[in-house]
Amino acid sequence: MKVTVSRRAHFNAAHRLYRKDWSDEKNNEIFGKCNNPNYHGHNYELIASVTGKIDQETGYVIDIKILKDIIKTEVEDVFDHKNLNLDVPEFKDLNPTAENIVVVIYNKIKVRLGEHLELEVTLYETPRNFVSYSG
Amino acid sequence: MKVTVSRRAHFNAAHRLYRKDWSDEKNNEIFGKCNNPNYHGHNYELIASVTGKIDQETGYVIDIKILKDIIKTEVEDVFDHKNLNLDVPEFKDLNPTAENIVVVIYNKIKVRLGEHLELEVTLYETPRNFVSYSG
Amino acid sequence: MKVTVSRRAHFNAAHRLYRKDWSDEKNNEIFGKCNNPNYHGHNYELIASVTGKIDQETGYVIDIKILKDIIKTEVEDVFDHKNLNLDVPEFKDLNPTAENIVVVIYNKIKVRLGEHLELEVTLYETPRNFVSYSG
Amino acid sequence: MKVTVSRRAHFNAAHRLYRKDWSDEKNNEIFGKCNNPNYHGHNYELIASVTGKIDQETGYVIDIKILKDIIKTEVEDVFDHKNLNLDVPEFKDLNPTAENIVVVIYNKIKVRLGEHLELEVTLYETPRNFVSYSG
Amino acid sequence: MKVTVSRRAHFNAAHRLYRKDWSDEKNNEIFGKCNNPNYHGHNYELIASVTGKIDQETGYVIDIKILKDIIKTEVEDVFDHKNLNLDVPEFKDLNPTAENIVVVIYNKIKVRLGEHLELEVTLYETPRNFVSYSG
Amino acid sequence: MKVTVSRRAHFNAAHRLYRKDWSDEKNNEIFGKCNNPNYHGHNYELIASVTGKIDQETGYVIDIKILKDIIKTEVEDVFDHKNLNLDVPEFKDLNPTAENIVVVIYNKIKVRLGEHLELEVTLYETPRNFVSYSG
Repeated sequence: MKVTVSRRAHFNAAHRLYRKDWSDEKNNEIFGKCNNPNYHGHNYELIASVTGKIDQETGYVIDIKILKDIIKTEVEDVFDHKNLNLDVPEFKDLNPTAENIVVVIYNKIKVRLGEHLELEVTLYETPRNFVSYSG
Repeated sequence: MKVTVSRRAHFNAAHRLYRKDWSDEKNNEIFGKCNNPNYHGHNYELIASVTGKIDQETGYVIDIKILKDIIKTEVEDVFDHKNLNLDVPEFKDLNPTAENIVVVIYNKIKVRLGEHLELEVTLYETPRNFVSYSG
Repeated sequence: MKVTVSRRAHFNAAHRLYRKDWSDEKNNEIFGKCNNPNYHGHNYELIASVTGKIDQETGYVIDIKILKDIIKTEVEDVFDHKNLNLDVPEFKDLNPTAENIVVVIYNKIKVRLGEHLELEVTLYETPRNFVSYSG
Repeated sequence: MKVTVSRRAHFNAAHRLYRKDWSDEKNNEIFGKCNNPNYHGHNYELIASVTGKIDQETGYVIDIKILKDIIKTEVEDVFDHKNLNLDVPEFKDLNPTAENIVVVIYNKIKVRLGEHLELEVTLYETPRNFVSYSG
Repeated sequence: MKVTVSRRAHFNAAHRLYRKDWSDEKNNEIFGKCNNPNYHGHNYELIASVTGKIDQETGYVIDIKILKDIIKTEVEDVFDHKNLNLDVPEFKDLNPTAENIVVVIYNKIKVRLGEHLELEVTLYETPRNFVSYSG
Repeated sequence: MKVTVSRRAHFNAAHRLYRKDWSDEKNNEIFGKCNNPNYHGHNYELIASVTGKIDQETGYVIDIKILKDIIKTEVEDVFDHKNLNLDVPEFKDLNPTAENIVVVIYNKIKVRLGEHLELEVTLYETPRNFVSYSG
């Protein structure tokens, strides 16, 4: 009897899509206006969905306050009001596309959960563009 | 060629998270402010998603008016403007966490559907906290 | 050059609409299912909108962190996860309709703002029902 | 390491649910007010979700501008501000239920994607009624 | 002490923007794709906002069930699942632009309200285009 | 008979709140994490609301395609995927608070409208923080 428990969170960040090892021409061709050298930004919306059995004592799969705290520590405290390229070590050499960000976030939250719990992370870059990853 | 048809509904209810067989201290420790003895409440939003083959005659998996009526009879009529702990028999001895509520709702809707139809229920306790269950 | 700055917040609460000095019949006639003796509840969404001149030094009408803190102290800390009828002194003898709640909230926030600032408060009881008050 | 990339789009269209080979009585019985002979309409919201491996060079599963263009060419240009029954060839003899529309859209987008990419399409007929199909 | 009480409702309808007394060329030039001869359609979302004094007995400006019923009778029952041009008498010779629709709706609701109550109607033609009118 | 016509648009941008003529300490004290030297960013949502009389010929206050184009030229083309501090001349010496941005946008759109039309602009910096200005 597995139930999925989801928590929505958000952070605001600047980023730029480009590869240091590519020419300006190639970066512009592939990443278009997302390659603005002075960065642009987003209100990222995040949904972390944890699947597991209901604990018969508490009626919880996971106390959502615990999930909320994990998201705060692993994601909000380090990504919010930051420049992903310059301020977040994971993206020093990794292009901060939505796809790469959602994998990084998944990995950071997953290690904090018990092994009996599955995880899926959905990340909205804009209300119209979003990605999800479940390992 | 299976398609999933979803219907969104809602109900407003009061509830309190606690176990009668636990001390006040333990209830407070585990359930925090959700254990307020005078109850608190939510606008619960519900999505019932039914999966099956498209009927070649009608072009429907299920007539959404039928699904809407099942949700009304099984969920809205008995949960809306109610106190889940006191007014709804299923929670007389079952802690009305979102996880337990979604399983109860799933079971009530599932028996009303033909056996060839699969069901998933998603329940939003708040816009940021939600759960889902598919049997 | 007046600008309006708005902050959205929320709280979950139980309530019951009724008058102690009316008979059960009259309460049922006027307040219908909102008069459930065991209470029901809502996810209240709140928008506090403050209007004033832009401070030429900071570019702010009001630092939104200050507005956020006022809402937390005056509204969230005292209304969230509470029973409005039983746990909130303002509604001891005042029927907690959306109209009465929004006036109470307006008064609590207004006294915390400088006299040069105007206020409007909008309160969503459900996504389809909401009220607003500006003094 | 498969990630799902989703793009939201929309189109406005008129339609009518009925079968030419049924009597008016039977069409009314089965399709109710959706069978209005003069049509009614919707703001259809569409989510196309593409699943595949992250390209290690670009950090993309699919460039979302490409997905956006496919949706524009295959769906928006031919469905938007149209009468589905009269203006869209696929529905000449196919009842434009949400289920049938989502399958048509899936097929039109799927042939434009590389074979290594999976697709799911979700179609909102109203904010409360929606369908999804993944082949 | 005036409070505004708002109720959200919706209806789905087909329409076409054009003037019978104009040539096809002029209609196309002015109304573009909204002039599709076979119609297109929308999920119209409606907010009716009623302003007045709080009744000291009930705590209501207006019982929202009454407002909900007025909207049902005056708007939903006559506009929902209809073709505005063909099925709704008010638009027989009046171009059903959002502006003209919102004025028609305002007039239909206003006559049903007591004279001491003010009204504003907001009509969403799409999530991105909307109009409002207050007499 | 004045009606208000509103159009919603959006742009993504990076920004930083600070004054060049203040010390780092003062900037940090006043602007907190919004003063991150490497910038952060937002999905700004914009609503431009134009009020005027309905043209009896067309049924329009303003053709919303014209309003959409003005927003595109004046706002989206110059703000989207940009760094407001570095890429937008208006903010070279003006702190890009939401209040200052909304006034700049108002002025840019207002000069493009006929004198008989009134304007209000609402700007969402996040779903919870927004500002509005009407001259």
